[in-house]
Amino acid sequence: MPQLNVAVFCGSRHGANESYTHAAIALGEAIAHRQHTLVYGGGSVGLMGSLAHAVDDGGARVVGVIPGVLAPAERSGVTVGEQIVATSMNERKAAICQMSHCFIALPGGYGTLDELFEVLTNSQLDIDRKPIGILNIEGYYDGIIEWVRNAAKEAFVSPEHTELFVVDADPVALLDKLEAAIKGLPAAVLPEE
Amino acid sequence: MPQLNVAVFCGSRHGANESYTHAAIALGEAIAHRQHTLVYGGGSVGLMGSLAHAVDDGGARVVGVIPGVLAPAERSGVTVGEQIVATSMNERKAAICQMSHCFIALPGGYGTLDELFEVLTNSQLDIDRKPIGILNIEGYYDGIIEWVRNAAKEAFVSPEHTELFVVDADPVALLDKLEAAIKGLPAAVLPEE
Ligand SMILES: [Mg+2]
Repeated sequence: MPQLNVAVFCGSRHGANESYTHAAIALGEAIAHRQHTLVYGGGSVGLMGSLAHAVDDGGARVVGVIPGVLAPAERSGVTVGEQIVATSMNERKAAICQMSHCFIALPGGYGTLDELFEVLTNSQLDIDRKPIGILNIEGYYDGIIEWVRNAAKEAFVSPEHTELFVVDADPVALLDKLEAAIKGLPAAVLPEE
Repeated sequence: MPQLNVAVFCGSRHGANESYTHAAIALGEAIAHRQHTLVYGGGSVGLMGSLAHAVDDGGARVVGVIPGVLAPAERSGVTVGEQIVATSMNERKAAICQMSHCFIALPGGYGTLDELFEVLTNSQLDIDRKPIGILNIEGYYDGIIEWVRNAAKEAFVSPEHTELFVVDADPVALLDKLEAAIKGLPAAVLPEE
């Protein structure tokens, strides 16, 4: 597998359970071990910070894309890796999407869900068909997965579009699934070298 | 209550249960009866179409904002009210948000959730504090509401941010709640006349 740019969406908080931080670190270590690049929202606190430090400590590349408006909320003053400053929330999302081969959602709040549903919408519309993975730690995403199942049953989401994302509780297994999905994609879908 | 621009996010399908269409029509009738303006994604099929026709038939103003890319998927050739063409999905969302006093989510798919979580994210970050309502027909949004409850319990969403949206199964009661919330907002938050 060639080197990939892996976009990760996650919280700027740690959450109430240590297992969220452990999962963020384990994902960062796996990304570093495979010499992939992390592309993320650029924060240095919460799961964002734990993830970015794990990739950086593992000797792999970290690219953070942060809009000026979020500087106080997601930054501690410390930055990890390279930083790109976006002019708006939408420019940030567009830049992260454009430069990445796949997307992973770790636990997070409304912003993480906004990013997840934006890439799902783009994938469904064939605007951007890159693989999407949900790291479902402690059942954090059970409510969302249940909503998708019901939305398909109620005919607002096509059955085939319930398979636009893969789910796993294990970071390494999730990366394996995303790498397998990328192998099946036409080169035109992926970012240029 | 002065005339409001009410943004509605919803599916370009009807869904498997007639009650979704009945709710879309009831909401459209209530918007028209109060002489508000509907701002929406501009589609003429599915719940989008039922809603827009109900507002239009009731003699109130309809403004549809549609990006070129979606023309085949959400249009039947018939348009309802005024149409604004946006150059991208993000420009569409930004235009709808900017011109509206409040937001309502009716049942829909990934695109509807993308819009809902985008306005929740903007509200949470104080970028745009307009009231947000979920029309929860047949428990369609139970999975999402359950996710928010768990996200707060797991400390990824602040307790006060679980109150950034109101929920009701009745369109008239939901509009009442949103109008009451708008009365409490400073004028600077709302779009200009
Ligand atoms: Mg979004």
